[in-house]
Amino acid sequence: MKRISILNGIVGYKKKVGLAPGTLVHVGEEEARTCELSLIQYDADDVHESSIEADTDFGALRKEDKVCWLNVDGLDDVDVIDRIGEAFGVHDLILEDVLNTGQRPKLEEAEEGLFITVKMLQANEGQISSEQVSMIVGDGYVISFQERAGDVFESVRERLRSGRGRVRKAGADYLAYCLLDAIVDNYFAVLEQLGERIEADQVQLMEEPDEEVLAEVHGLKREMIFLRRAVWPLREAINALSKSDSPVIRKETRIYVNDVYDHTMQIIETLETFRDVVAGMFDMYLSSVSNRMNSVMKVLTIIATIFIPLSFIAGVYGMNFNNMPELTTGWMYPLGFWLMVFAVAVGMLGFFKYKKWL
Amino acid sequence: MKRISILNGIVGYKKKVGLAPGTLVHVGEEEARTCELSLIQYDADDVHESSIEADTDFGALRKEDKVCWLNVDGLDDVDVIDRIGEAFGVHDLILEDVLNTGQRPKLEEAEEGLFITVKMLQANEGQISSEQVSMIVGDGYVISFQERAGDVFESVRERLRSGRGRVRKAGADYLAYCLLDAIVDNYFAVLEQLGERIEADQVQLMEEPDEEVLAEVHGLKREMIFLRRAVWPLREAINALSKSDSPVIRKETRIYVNDVYDHTMQIIETLETFRDVVAGMFDMYLSSVSNRMNSVMKVLTIIATIFIPLSFIAGVYGMNFNNMPELTTGWMYPLGFWLMVFAVAVGMLGFFKYKKWL
Amino acid sequence: MKRISILNGIVGYKKKVGLAPGTLVHVGEEEARTCELSLIQYDADDVHESSIEADTDFGALRKEDKVCWLNVDGLDDVDVIDRIGEAFGVHDLILEDVLNTGQRPKLEEAEEGLFITVKMLQANEGQISSEQVSMIVGDGYVISFQERAGDVFESVRERLRSGRGRVRKAGADYLAYCLLDAIVDNYFAVLEQLGERIEADQVQLMEEPDEEVLAEVHGLKREMIFLRRAVWPLREAINALSKSDSPVIRKETRIYVNDVYDHTMQIIETLETFRDVVAGMFDMYLSSVSNRMNSVMKVLTIIATIFIPLSFIAGVYGMNFNNMPELTTGWMYPLGFWLMVFAVAVGMLGFFKYKKWL
Amino acid sequence: MKRISILNGIVGYKKKVGLAPGTLVHVGEEEARTCELSLIQYDADDVHESSIEADTDFGALRKEDKVCWLNVDGLDDVDVIDRIGEAFGVHDLILEDVLNTGQRPKLEEAEEGLFITVKMLQANEGQISSEQVSMIVGDGYVISFQERAGDVFESVRERLRSGRGRVRKAGADYLAYCLLDAIVDNYFAVLEQLGERIEADQVQLMEEPDEEVLAEVHGLKREMIFLRRAVWPLREAINALSKSDSPVIRKETRIYVNDVYDHTMQIIETLETFRDVVAGMFDMYLSSVSNRMNSVMKVLTIIATIFIPLSFIAGVYGMNFNNMPELTTGWMYPLGFWLMVFAVAVGMLGFFKYKKWL
Amino acid sequence: MKRISILNGIVGYKKKVGLAPGTLVHVGEEEARTCELSLIQYDADDVHESSIEADTDFGALRKEDKVCWLNVDGLDDVDVIDRIGEAFGVHDLILEDVLNTGQRPKLEEAEEGLFITVKMLQANEGQISSEQVSMIVGDGYVISFQERAGDVFESVRERLRSGRGRVRKAGADYLAYCLLDAIVDNYFAVLEQLGERIEADQVQLMEEPDEEVLAEVHGLKREMIFLRRAVWPLREAINALSKSDSPVIRKETRIYVNDVYDHTMQIIETLETFRDVVAGMFDMYLSSVSNRMNSVMKVLTIIATIFIPLSFIAGVYGMNFNNMPELTTGWMYPLGFWLMVFAVAVGMLGFFKYKKWL
Repeated sequence: MKRISILNGIVGYKKKVGLAPGTLVHVGEEEARTCELSLIQYDADDVHESSIEADTDFGALRKEDKVCWLNVDGLDDVDVIDRIGEAFGVHDLILEDVLNTGQRPKLEEAEEGLFITVKMLQANEGQISSEQVSMIVGDGYVISFQERAGDVFESVRERLRSGRGRVRKAGADYLAYCLLDAIVDNYFAVLEQLGERIEADQVQLMEEPDEEVLAEVHGLKREMIFLRRAVWPLREAINALSKSDSPVIRKETRIYVNDVYDHTMQIIETLETFRDVVAGMFDMYLSSVSNRMNSVMKVLTIIATIFIPLSFIAGVYGMNFNNMPELTTGWMYPLGFWLMVFAVAVGMLGFFKYKKWL
Repeated sequence: MKRISILNGIVGYKKKVGLAPGTLVHVGEEEARTCELSLIQYDADDVHESSIEADTDFGALRKEDKVCWLNVDGLDDVDVIDRIGEAFGVHDLILEDVLNTGQRPKLEEAEEGLFITVKMLQANEGQISSEQVSMIVGDGYVISFQERAGDVFESVRERLRSGRGRVRKAGADYLAYCLLDAIVDNYFAVLEQLGERIEADQVQLMEEPDEEVLAEVHGLKREMIFLRRAVWPLREAINALSKSDSPVIRKETRIYVNDVYDHTMQIIETLETFRDVVAGMFDMYLSSVSNRMNSVMKVLTIIATIFIPLSFIAGVYGMNFNNMPELTTGWMYPLGFWLMVFAVAVGMLGFFKYKKWL
Repeated sequence: MKRISILNGIVGYKKKVGLAPGTLVHVGEEEARTCELSLIQYDADDVHESSIEADTDFGALRKEDKVCWLNVDGLDDVDVIDRIGEAFGVHDLILEDVLNTGQRPKLEEAEEGLFITVKMLQANEGQISSEQVSMIVGDGYVISFQERAGDVFESVRERLRSGRGRVRKAGADYLAYCLLDAIVDNYFAVLEQLGERIEADQVQLMEEPDEEVLAEVHGLKREMIFLRRAVWPLREAINALSKSDSPVIRKETRIYVNDVYDHTMQIIETLETFRDVVAGMFDMYLSSVSNRMNSVMKVLTIIATIFIPLSFIAGVYGMNFNNMPELTTGWMYPLGFWLMVFAVAVGMLGFFKYKKWL
Repeated sequence: MKRISILNGIVGYKKKVGLAPGTLVHVGEEEARTCELSLIQYDADDVHESSIEADTDFGALRKEDKVCWLNVDGLDDVDVIDRIGEAFGVHDLILEDVLNTGQRPKLEEAEEGLFITVKMLQANEGQISSEQVSMIVGDGYVISFQERAGDVFESVRERLRSGRGRVRKAGADYLAYCLLDAIVDNYFAVLEQLGERIEADQVQLMEEPDEEVLAEVHGLKREMIFLRRAVWPLREAINALSKSDSPVIRKETRIYVNDVYDHTMQIIETLETFRDVVAGMFDMYLSSVSNRMNSVMKVLTIIATIFIPLSFIAGVYGMNFNNMPELTTGWMYPLGFWLMVFAVAVGMLGFFKYKKWL
Repeated sequence: MKRISILNGIVGYKKKVGLAPGTLVHVGEEEARTCELSLIQYDADDVHESSIEADTDFGALRKEDKVCWLNVDGLDDVDVIDRIGEAFGVHDLILEDVLNTGQRPKLEEAEEGLFITVKMLQANEGQISSEQVSMIVGDGYVISFQERAGDVFESVRERLRSGRGRVRKAGADYLAYCLLDAIVDNYFAVLEQLGERIEADQVQLMEEPDEEVLAEVHGLKREMIFLRRAVWPLREAINALSKSDSPVIRKETRIYVNDVYDHTMQIIETLETFRDVVAGMFDMYLSSVSNRMNSVMKVLTIIATIFIPLSFIAGVYGMNFNNMPELTTGWMYPLGFWLMVFAVAVGMLGFFKYKKWL
């Protein structure tokens, strides 16, 4: 789980500058040291789940009558990925895209099958973590590559094991759809969390605007920028998938792909709504702060404006002129002076009240 | 009637994460506990209205020579909806969309007929409430699903009962148009209310800008965001409907659909106008507040700037120097000093007047 | 002549909510109580102008060899409009649009002919008034509907009477073009007036920014919003007209329609230019006001900052310490003290001058 | 040479309101009283240049084997233009466009040839002047209309005279291209001047922001608005020219037209860059002014905040209590008091320094 | 290495105004005095690298069975470029584009081959330098033109020498792709540097906003504007290349071109993300500065507001009334007065604390 950086999407390119195109180098951050492979093979009647070794003969995994889902966690072992590519006849440039975790979501159609790469988002305790998932979907097989162990596919595996729903009866294309659907459904959870943070921040902005909330708002803006960057191309990719005339996607699966497309549309609209709301929050902060500042300034104005004339009066009777009859009038200090002070103070307060400044 | 939330449209998705696609779960907020069904069957000569039970055989409702309108209020009884779907041959994914009340307005064409989902807006005492209405329109039947009892269709029912207008003579497609038209016509009422609030707020902004109006403006902005989100896809959906080559929509109904389309265009333009006006209101608030602040500051400036030199003069004659001939000059205090004070004050006021700061 | 309201375009819809589509109700504001009809029939040789009664047989007005222009001022007499529609075979929905004066400009093609609805703008003493004009153009006839008496068609009538130009020789389509052209030409007059107000406001903003100009600018913004709303769909409508393959528009008239289209483009560009300029005026106001505020604050700063140390000096020599040798030094007050005051004041003024704050 | 006005583009329309379409009236400002005509006739071998009279028989100017370029300076003599139009078979509406100098740049294709109207910009001592140039390009002739004498075509004439380049060998279409190219090339000079002013203003904004620079920036914004208005439709027109299938433009000339198109693209991009930069300048001004204001306010804060407590101390020892032992302590005034003053002043300065306010 | 100027893209046009189209003039800044030519000829088996003289017979360089890459550093020697153009049959307008270093990136297809012009960006110590690279790609040859010596092609040369990768086996089109790829890969390095600067500035904005960071932000904005101007047309050009049906680009190379296209998309998205982030930085600066200003103002408010009433009290007891009993009360000064002062000060501080202003 790592924080999304502004440099996401270009990180690691330095490593590649100057290499021949198609040279396989893992450009992501190096976290997972090893590469774990798991395999699920199934048909309508049976399901077989196994964890396999890096030195397996991948070519032997494909079987005519069963759908084979090979999942790879961790992209460091370039050699394994290279051999998988060879076994399934994947073009070098596509393998390069698998390894380049800064890839933007996209769909590519090749003769051997479809290549889909998307961002898998997960929300954990206020943190959104992003991981690139690539899928190669061919006739009878799905190969999925993830940056790290831990994913959102558990429900799909559960359905495969139990045989619930259509998944065991349908082909590799339906499995790929299920994986996509699981990823997209998780976006809603991420959005829900984000939405709740926005609502909380809005309340605080109205009540107690401080620099912390402002930093929060800037953070929200930033996360939104990155979400948009993940979701907009995702929509394009899924649209391309639903329009694709590749034989890999069968007619009966197409309606499901359209459904995922509707979900991405809904995600995008929610995101745009959030964006509009967050954009308005900076205005709210500014006006809230300036309202506060104004009420502080008003108090100063009032206190100062009342005391300045009073101080002048006191100053006048502190003068040392010989000929000041007021000074020797007995009732002047205890009565006259304080009455004057009181009159001026009350008069000004009344004036401010009348002007609605108070 | 509930306030529109920022999370509208994604709420309830959590419930669905991990379920097989097409699994029916009602994701809306749970308000209506029961599910009420009402049926209207009519042809040019006759109309029959009845409330039916949840355990009816829905398949028997379709009749060759009559149009059948089945209305469902409340989406909690998933079983009923499932059975309706079966009876009318509706795809699982469409039923899923019926239950998912965060759906964006859309039109879907299937073999069995058309599926339209829109937002029904109602304005009650300054509150805009939103409810999802889904319609399945087939050959000779319309099935409408609403989240709650209470709708804007009473005028359509009235026309069906009385036989006024074309509705009894025309088919299911015209009925669907009438329902859509009733929903869209209500948008105008919502807009009118909104427009009146905007005008009232504008007057208040000019005259007495305070934080309450500002909160109102932020509220207006928010409501506008949600209205746009309801109306823009609605326009798309109605456009798709008018362009659709589905046999369900007959040629003579198409001109009416175009008319609804024109209305949505008008709603969108009004909404955009409102948006421009509301966007300008924040600027108005800022400038209004800063104008107020400025006039307050000016008074401070003037009072302070006049009294500061006066206090200095008083301070000078409060000094204890032995050799201050002014202090012993008899006419100095009652005349000289006060003349000086008067001259300085009048001079400064004149200067400010001349500079147009007063 | 009435001020354009924010609710324009949705006003009156309430009256219609719940009515069957095609029911004729005049939704505009009720001003003109009666409905005046005037008729001009002409061919290349002859012109006949008459005012006709509401109970005329409208069907008899159409003549094979003459062009007939029927103008209706006032939309209150729904019955007359209904009978005109019947006589000329106009669809109910189109008549509904004629009566709905909040209609957006549009072109509709029907079998019987073309239906065009536009806004007729007139500028009178700084007020822009708007009126909806609908035209039904068929083979050999033009029917125009206006909300009120008084229009911009006098020059067209004059040309018809005198036989100047092509208008008498050409058909109904050319007449419709002439009417459109007259309306569009008047937009230029409206824009010119608007432009002059903008220029005047700009000068005042620079020289004497006050809340009145600001209100003016807000008013300009608002009027611009409504102008845009009238002109953009107008452009669409005229474009549709020039692209229309309706037999009503003959080939030789098409080039004139293109010319009107060019004019609307020019109007739109001028309007967008105005919008950019007006958008900049709010910035100008803010900076102008803040410049003013700054110069006021500067004077305060300078006066206060000069007198505060001087008052301190006076305060020091007002102290009652026994042992203050300065107080008993004879030249101290008339010379030393005032020199000190002078030095401090001049020193600070010099410092401010040096810092370019003065 | 005249300043570009906001009313440019609609000026003079008033004169035309109510006239029959195609009536020729010069709507530009009336500057040039007379109309000067010059003619260049050339083929690969020979060139003949002459100034001709207004009463020439224009029909006789066209020659089969020579290209004829007729240039008209000044649009006041409507009669001459009318006769030219007749001689070359130009449609009335096109002649109307020639005279209407508020025309937006456009290309029109007619049977007789092409009609192109563009803005010719010239930069003279910081002033940008604009003039409308219309060209009618037919088989073997180019007629160019200008508002005033003085143009950017001298280099083209020079090349015609000397026979340098392809121009003498190629046809009328290449000549038209050369004229367009000369006009577009001058835009670069205008942009360069504008760019230099922007750079100079930016430096001044950073160093000495005053209202004059601000007025400059507003002026720049305005000029940019008008430049955009000239260039964007120009691009469209040239694009239409390069895509036109008119026989007037031969295949070998098309590549040159594409080249001009690239130039307009470059002009547009530069203009958009300028716009972005100028848009940022208002922000720069605001922040620069507020930074200045802040530093002034800081000085006030510091001086006031230091002297206010000092004045209080002086005030305390100016009190007349009988029992103030400090007053009679001998070392108190010369030492104790001034030490206290010094300590407070230094303490506060230190505090401000520590807080980084100084 | 030179700083990017706002006038980039139009510089030098002045030199060309008035020249015949196709006249070759180098319009870039004159830096490189000489023109260096290097040649690499290779096939799958062999590679031959040489530096050649300006007076070579360029026509002889083309060989049937070898790919020939001619690189030209420096564009001053117009004669050499002219002769290269002649030898390889390049159109004059294309040579003109080679020399015009303000060209926007574009692809042009001619019969002889493809002409591609792009910007080569390099990041050196916080400075981004830009250089125009033009390539003419024909059957069996690539000619590249650079403004200066020094490029990003070293890795391509290395691969040619060593025979690593596909480059030696593939044709001229693959070589052109390799050069493009090397240029585009360098954009990532430039973006990475930019991204790091943005992140550093953001931290500083939050912590210590000063005018320097602001200038930095303005600088970043400016650089972004120029980057966009280089990258957006680049994307268009590469898209055109991948869609081009020129025989020069073979089918097996097309997939590589698509890969470069994906990279430019990624660059554009990163750039747009940066733009959004940088756009937000000005807001951050403003709010950060105003927060600072507010906290300074608060201290002033508090100090002034506390001392103003205290000074008034001191002023009162500095008055010279005869009848002021407090003055003669023994405990009044040491106890009563200071208690009063203490009470007022503590009361006000408490009030401010309570109001959360402190």
